[in-house]
Amino acid sequence: MARIVMKFGGTSMAGIERIRSVAERVGREAAAGNEVLVVVSAMAGETDRLVQLCREAAALHDPREYDVVVASGEQVTAGLLAMTLQNNGVPSRSFMGWQLVRATGTHGNARVETVERRLLDEALKAGTVCVIPGFQGVSDDGRIATLGRGGSDTSAVAIAAGVKADRCDIYTDVDGVYTTDPRIVPKARKLAEVTFEEMLELAGVGSKVLQVRSVGLAMRERLPLRVLSAFEDKPGTQIVVELSGDMERNEIAGIAADRNEARITLTGIADKPGTVARVIRPLAQAGIAVDMIVHAATPSAGASDLTFTVPRASLSQAIAVIEDWKGDIGYDKLITDDRVAKVSIVGVGIRSNPELAARMFDVLAERRINLLAVTTSEIKVSALIAEDELELAVRVLHTSFGLDEEPQA
Amino acid sequence: MARIVMKFGGTSMAGIERIRSVAERVGREAAAGNEVLVVVSAMAGETDRLVQLCREAAALHDPREYDVVVASGEQVTAGLLAMTLQNNGVPSRSFMGWQLVRATGTHGNARVETVERRLLDEALKAGTVCVIPGFQGVSDDGRIATLGRGGSDTSAVAIAAGVKADRCDIYTDVDGVYTTDPRIVPKARKLAEVTFEEMLELAGVGSKVLQVRSVGLAMRERLPLRVLSAFEDKPGTQIVVELSGDMERNEIAGIAADRNEARITLTGIADKPGTVARVIRPLAQAGIAVDMIVHAATPSAGASDLTFTVPRASLSQAIAVIEDWKGDIGYDKLITDDRVAKVSIVGVGIRSNPELAARMFDVLAERRINLLAVTTSEIKVSALIAEDELELAVRVLHTSFGLDEEPQA
Repeated sequence: MARIVMKFGGTSMAGIERIRSVAERVGREAAAGNEVLVVVSAMAGETDRLVQLCREAAALHDPREYDVVVASGEQVTAGLLAMTLQNNGVPSRSFMGWQLVRATGTHGNARVETVERRLLDEALKAGTVCVIPGFQGVSDDGRIATLGRGGSDTSAVAIAAGVKADRCDIYTDVDGVYTTDPRIVPKARKLAEVTFEEMLELAGVGSKVLQVRSVGLAMRERLPLRVLSAFEDKPGTQIVVELSGDMERNEIAGIAADRNEARITLTGIADKPGTVARVIRPLAQAGIAVDMIVHAATPSAGASDLTFTVPRASLSQAIAVIEDWKGDIGYDKLITDDRVAKVSIVGVGIRSNPELAARMFDVLAERRINLLAVTTSEIKVSALIAEDELELAVRVLHTSFGLDEEPQA
Repeated sequence: MARIVMKFGGTSMAGIERIRSVAERVGREAAAGNEVLVVVSAMAGETDRLVQLCREAAALHDPREYDVVVASGEQVTAGLLAMTLQNNGVPSRSFMGWQLVRATGTHGNARVETVERRLLDEALKAGTVCVIPGFQGVSDDGRIATLGRGGSDTSAVAIAAGVKADRCDIYTDVDGVYTTDPRIVPKARKLAEVTFEEMLELAGVGSKVLQVRSVGLAMRERLPLRVLSAFEDKPGTQIVVELSGDMERNEIAGIAADRNEARITLTGIADKPGTVARVIRPLAQAGIAVDMIVHAATPSAGASDLTFTVPRASLSQAIAVIEDWKGDIGYDKLITDDRVAKVSIVGVGIRSNPELAARMFDVLAERRINLLAVTTSEIKVSALIAEDELELAVRVLHTSFGLDEEPQA
């Protein structure tokens, strides 16, 4: 017998038929003698509808009122799933976020602080399946607080940690973590195991299987996390702190592709201390995340170029911020390009094997793919390239790093 | 300066444009220096949608889970109205039912017990308009409890009583209480004043302007209650405990028409004590409200007929209950008729003037309208007639009782 948290996303909750199939899956885990908690998202599309209503009501709206409106979506699915479970003969009840989950920080983007386990422990002990709306809790001022978009994954992990669950299973519309995007590489394979860190990088650069914050939280709590298909009965991907030794796996876990990039270059930047900070600080203050930063000084000229990337959707805002601060920053020209993309190799093997990065550059050079910028981290090497070369780059890297075939046991 | 509660129904909240017009009306009351609380319904159609989801999830569902699902509709409109008011420069915030309103009794059909005024008083003192979702509160077990369909009117009155409001204004899609249904009698006139009791009878027999329970509660609390149009700036109808002496009004307030009736006759019932109770008790236990009861004994035969009415929607259930209890009740034949309707004259004048009832029977007899059953109360005389004679009956009574013209001052 184990205590498990099962999390279902919006696609799994979209309509009574799908809720019924979720209820059957939950019922099987309960019938197997497990203590089961279920965290649910709103029906697919519902949160967007509610966010749109808020935007129409007031362009700039009070995040506390926004929270009241958007939290209703998960409230509905939690009630519906609980009554469907009961209808199947599975004892069940819903709990609201405000009854259980203390959240702190900004309304609309709060963090889970504590989970009141007493109510849950009592219910679980009595054999009741606990259904909890994801994405929400109660703030210090006693009002509904939501955790930001995608926050249901984080709710699930936080609740699993709070009740000391044995594991947290995330049911989603993909059936695991893949070596790359199967729409680009049909030979992409599902990974049986991926480390937390690799998962973070894969989620962070566009694989979008799990919310980044939820993975980080599970990592800190050392909570076993699985990603599984909500629609098929297949093994998913286990997210682990360290790869198990007995499982053979490539040094590279996968290739990530990210089209959500735009490049900005400032020419003729003065070569003096603090230049990069003077550019990045106002962008950060405007809430714009700067990703790849390349600063190549040209010592003879006393000035240089600074290149960095921002999310494509923030490009025009970033341009406005930089032009506002032109006097403070000091630059000649502002050049932008939104037809760029980022390709990355991700794997814990990169840490110990510098040849992997070199091999990546060789493979791209052979195909005459020009590198606009390069960044590296412990477990990832990323290259910024022209967007129309992205698919080719992903395919050749996938093949070159031996990801097309199943690893040999 | 007054403290007022304004209640807006689902039609007034159906979409952002309408919520904006509600916000303007609320803003005017606040700008006039009043302390304002607003109680809102869900967007028109939303509660039906949520109820339907519950039905699809489980035919017999836990009312506590039903409450979680259906309460979300008012939560959404409360948040949206609060942010719209803020956008207009009117300080405002929403409160959830679970933060304020203690409810007791059955989930899905709870009653307001107390309203936590401290939070509201503080907000009102600070000049904040308080927006509260109608129809809901929190039960003793700390869970969301709803007050039953139409419960937002009751919420509004209970909250007005709880915060000692000077009055409660119910904004609805009719602009007041009429002498009868204007779809039947185009000459129907809006009443400037109607007593609580008349209103109860008018609402109870089909005028459907206000939820019956809300009127009863306002009556007990002696709370001035007004019904006004949400869409036009016109005086509405004042609901009062006693008619003000200086206002001339007919002895009869109006004519009520109710098509929601079905007649059941049991023939050959034994003439012995407790017969009527033996029929009515099992129906009451099944939750079927019996309205008009006529029991005419035929002393010579030792047996008699019992006729009564039930809501038309409950007819088949009522038949099943009676047939189940046939052995206990003892009757020859069960005869039903669902093509009947009830017409009533309503007015406080009936109490002191028995000639009004006589005049009603005369008027109906002149038009050869057959009376299938008759019941009287302090302020109402009702006749059960064939449904296809209902409109004629309402029109001739409206004219005969002088309701076609404005009363002379």
